[in-house]
Amino acid sequence: MSDPRTIGVFDSGIGGLTVVKAIRELLPNENIFYLGDTARVPYGGKSPSTVERYSVEMTDMLIAEDVKAMVIACNSASAVALPKLEEMLPVPVVGVIKPGAQAAVAATRNGHVGVIGTRATIKSGAYERELLALNPGVRISVRACPLLVPLIEEGWLEDELTDRVIARYLGRLMHDGVDALVLGCTHYPLLADAIARFLGGKAELVDSARNCAKALEQLLDRQSLRAPRDREGSLQVALTDAPDNFLRVAREALQLELGKVQLREVLHPARTL
Amino acid sequence: MSDPRTIGVFDSGIGGLTVVKAIRELLPNENIFYLGDTARVPYGGKSPSTVERYSVEMTDMLIAEDVKAMVIACNSASAVALPKLEEMLPVPVVGVIKPGAQAAVAATRNGHVGVIGTRATIKSGAYERELLALNPGVRISVRACPLLVPLIEEGWLEDELTDRVIARYLGRLMHDGVDALVLGCTHYPLLADAIARFLGGKAELVDSARNCAKALEQLLDRQSLRAPRDREGSLQVALTDAPDNFLRVAREALQLELGKVQLREVLHPARTL
Repeated sequence: MSDPRTIGVFDSGIGGLTVVKAIRELLPNENIFYLGDTARVPYGGKSPSTVERYSVEMTDMLIAEDVKAMVIACNSASAVALPKLEEMLPVPVVGVIKPGAQAAVAATRNGHVGVIGTRATIKSGAYERELLALNPGVRISVRACPLLVPLIEEGWLEDELTDRVIARYLGRLMHDGVDALVLGCTHYPLLADAIARFLGGKAELVDSARNCAKALEQLLDRQSLRAPRDREGSLQVALTDAPDNFLRVAREALQLELGKVQLREVLHPARTL
Repeated sequence: MSDPRTIGVFDSGIGGLTVVKAIRELLPNENIFYLGDTARVPYGGKSPSTVERYSVEMTDMLIAEDVKAMVIACNSASAVALPKLEEMLPVPVVGVIKPGAQAAVAATRNGHVGVIGTRATIKSGAYERELLALNPGVRISVRACPLLVPLIEEGWLEDELTDRVIARYLGRLMHDGVDALVLGCTHYPLLADAIARFLGGKAELVDSARNCAKALEQLLDRQSLRAPRDREGSLQVALTDAPDNFLRVAREALQLELGKVQLREVLHPARTL
């Protein structure tokens, strides 16, 4: 059995395209509709209630596209809004945090896992909860790295200044002895080479994008939702505001064919003024 | 004649508090109501139409506070939305761009002015327009510096890494020979010391916050709107999302008494879904 409908992918902006890249590699037959909330990006410094409200508005817009499953390709939104979305959405949902935590627990040999992400993701404690649920004995060190996203969006991917910022953010984690490091933000895979250079083989990188794609594959198999295997999947991209410089950076770094990017207005729930 | 009503100050986030600081120093009798759109900050990477829409929503909320005058303490919003706001608002409006341009033209001796700001501000060409209107012979070099705001929000104000980023952004401008540099973003005065160190006396810093306060003073005098001189002005701060780390940074760096920060929901125009 197969299901030809589309996978909805939602992110606060353009970083979630790293997840799209991983999904296209793993599931080339699937159609993908990507919605990035560039009108309100970033979510990473905003409060839980605001991130949850925005996530509900975005996933409502994806439901209107008749999607068969939803990927929350944003760590901040997954960290804060996933329980609410799972309860509310009429289709199955995959976030990025549980798959990342599972891969980290599998990767660590000394039982000490590091997690980096935005302020919202780190403050939420979502990775700690998932990691401890999988293995109550795991040791966890976390660090919010708010400068990495702007460095990536500036396109300074292979850059000595970026290397210095990475060293400052990760120095303590490595000194503490983590041997598996979760990239807890969908932008960060674009810095995977620079981060791996700093780790120098002492810790394994856990890329939430790739693990999220694997979790999606398992979900589709479990629920018999895979696309017909004889078709080539398509990719549609819609944003809530005109794309800036970063779309070019991401397109080049990821080598993704995005086609024409659509603009969609955010639909707010009706309100009396 | 005097007018006891409040001055409304609007910014995309918390950076506009540098303007509030300058207004309180220059006009200590004025009551100020500051509204920061932290639910959607930053504006600097967003499109002109989105920045204009957000600016209209924010100034509508300030009008409901019965303000006598409005300060657009955000370069991105001033650059893009000021004509629309001047046309629409029932009270006089001061932006940050014209005052900054006036001060730059007064400061330069060799006629070569530099402007730094967010992507939205630089792309708008608003400083060029104002500078050329004041002096058609002025030479202008501009540079978008999208990393400076995140560095400031991280609190790395006196930091060798920040110095390196400043050197990279400003190197070309200084090489080209600008002798007056406009800080075209209300966050940037928090880096005034670091930037001045790099300039090494070769260019004069033009701080849009201080010049905006002076323009407000002139406007209030012209329209007989000054507050009674025998009272101490108050400051109220409202944000559209719970404040993050940066409010602490700004409070400390500016030594501002903010009192209790209120939360206000963005009111969107009614829409049919």
